Amino acid sequence: MQKIGKQTIKFDTPPSILETACIVGPKESQGPLAKYFDTCLNDEFWGEKTWEKAESKIIKESISLAINKSKIPSESIDYCFAGDLLNQCISASFGLRSFSIPYFGIFGACSTFVEGMILSSILTSSGAANNCLFATSSHFCSAEKQFRFPLELGNQRPPTSQWTVTGGAAAIISSSGNGPYVTYATPGKIVDMGIKDANNMGAAMAPAAVDTILAHFKDTGRNPSYYDAIITGDLGHIGKDITCEMLKTYGYNIKSNYNDCGVLIFDKSSQDTHSGGSGCACCGSVFSGYLFNELKQKNINKLLLIATGALMNSTSSQQGESIPGIAHAVAIENLDV
Amino acid sequence: MQKIGKQTIKFDTPPSILETACIVGPKESQGPLAKYFDTCLNDEFWGEKTWEKAESKIIKESISLAINKSKIPSESIDYCFAGDLLNQCISASFGLRSFSIPYFGIFGACSTFVEGMILSSILTSSGAANNCLFATSSHFCSAEKQFRFPLELGNQRPPTSQWTVTGGAAAIISSSGNGPYVTYATPGKIVDMGIKDANNMGAAMAPAAVDTILAHFKDTGRNPSYYDAIITGDLGHIGKDITCEMLKTYGYNIKSNYNDCGVLIFDKSSQDTHSGGSGCACCGSVFSGYLFNELKQKNINKLLLIATGALMNSTSSQQGESIPGIAHAVAIENLDV
Repeated sequence: MQKIGKQTIKFDTPPSILETACIVGPKESQGPLAKYFDTCLNDEFWGEKTWEKAESKIIKESISLAINKSKIPSESIDYCFAGDLLNQCISASFGLRSFSIPYFGIFGACSTFVEGMILSSILTSSGAANNCLFATSSHFCSAEKQFRFPLELGNQRPPTSQWTVTGGAAAIISSSGNGPYVTYATPGKIVDMGIKDANNMGAAMAPAAVDTILAHFKDTGRNPSYYDAIITGDLGHIGKDITCEMLKTYGYNIKSNYNDCGVLIFDKSSQDTHSGGSGCACCGSVFSGYLFNELKQKNINKLLLIATGALMNSTSSQQGESIPGIAHAVAIENLDV
Repeated sequence: MQKIGKQTIKFDTPPSILETACIVGPKESQGPLAKYFDTCLNDEFWGEKTWEKAESKIIKESISLAINKSKIPSESIDYCFAGDLLNQCISASFGLRSFSIPYFGIFGACSTFVEGMILSSILTSSGAANNCLFATSSHFCSAEKQFRFPLELGNQRPPTSQWTVTGGAAAIISSSGNGPYVTYATPGKIVDMGIKDANNMGAAMAPAAVDTILAHFKDTGRNPSYYDAIITGDLGHIGKDITCEMLKTYGYNIKSNYNDCGVLIFDKSSQDTHSGGSGCACCGSVFSGYLFNELKQKNINKLLLIATGALMNSTSSQQGESIPGIAHAVAIENLDV
């Protein structure tokens, strides 16, 4: 492992993504990617009394599923990384407490899934671990309640708003395995361009995505055309367009192979999700369901995945603060093609 | 770097703690460790309009101070880790946004400082980075407001309650340097013994501390007497006693060289802090101020530092959940003695 350029880590012996799993809510189950998800829920509660408890159950069951699919005994998973959007990341803490795996709590807002992937890759490549698990979750109802308005209010959502994905995603990274491999990681800087509209997260996070994508290309010497697919986490329709436009001003045209998990997960014309999906589970479930399958099927062999997060809370917005964004990128590749 | 035993990482080429810095609030400035802190504040606002903004300023200035003291240009700090107790870790996000350093948000509640130290040690030992910075903060007023009651209520605090430390702490770990060195890390598991009293965090976290300390001794083959000092993060008086008692039932008597940052930072007889200090900055400032000085002066040459965290929020308590605890341990040693 070595640092190259300003902020990229090159994995000389790339760790392998062994297995992924994801569970999604009812709205996601009606979306265009439904067939790729492991479990589709019929309701937002899944037998629990509160949305928070439902979200914890979703992350817990996603992890169980990933462990079962990997056929690795859970005692052989050395460390795990997890985080979510709820205050003090309680979905992760309560979801993971029954697993007897040393735990690193992480918070990258909706960039958490890739943050966990990067740290898991570092640990499994360094000798600190053979197998690491990382997981995340989000829940439309618990997120709306916490960040915006009580759902019972039936508040109207502006066109720039995004729909928090209800779901959980987990994956296992190993020092051995047959790929796909994590070959490079470009952890992002906090970028704050002064956007204050908490209903326009795409615009707040897009500059961070651009900053990290540019750093990745500069550090690795790669161009957009190197990748079969460049996928951001949850910029949605508006953030995706901003990212394309901004990168064009820096001389990079990514339009032909670029998409966003928040755009992919819902059908814009029929699902009334305005600017698209968001939340930790947006990137998590689209990767764990759809993209991992495409990598395994060799329909995608070179993927640049950039998860984006908005590092704010309702208090910071009420106190007039802008919304700092962050984006973490990983290159995931099949090396035998 | 290698994993030894069940959950410990041994650093074959131990990274060095280059420098630390900490800033504390008025109550901490009247405590027994005041002379060890870099900056002592006269009021909880430090010229800001809100406690949250004050906390962000404290972590930001602690980081600036650590960088200045280290004499390393901030461009040479490859990655940083930070987190805090505020919802969505806004103290860290807003405090770090002006530094142009790739950022990993972490959340380990009051165990955050050592979680950051472990991850920084892994990155600097693996080739991923030469220098990493980690930081944390907490603030009595923002924490009381968020987790308990409005301060204006003047609510009476029960004898088991602890006093959240107002402060910020930052440190820089490097692949080169003259020590003290991080030689071992034992990341902890989530341990939940069913404690539900949010005013008795010491009791909720002590079993996690015991679990991690036991794992550390078993994995490394070391005994309590190996260390000059064994210091937990913020168990306070009650949690400290529980930890001693529990370890005794496992055959380990640590009483002679054991203490707790929450016990050390306030004077029990005169400062009316009940069971002692708590908060991310409790372990952070006691280490960055007092313990790092003792290591540098060779008054302590072998330190086992175990930061403890309670992974709950006010919603989980309101929904009847118990309080999961976690504890992360690091062995910090002078190797030339």
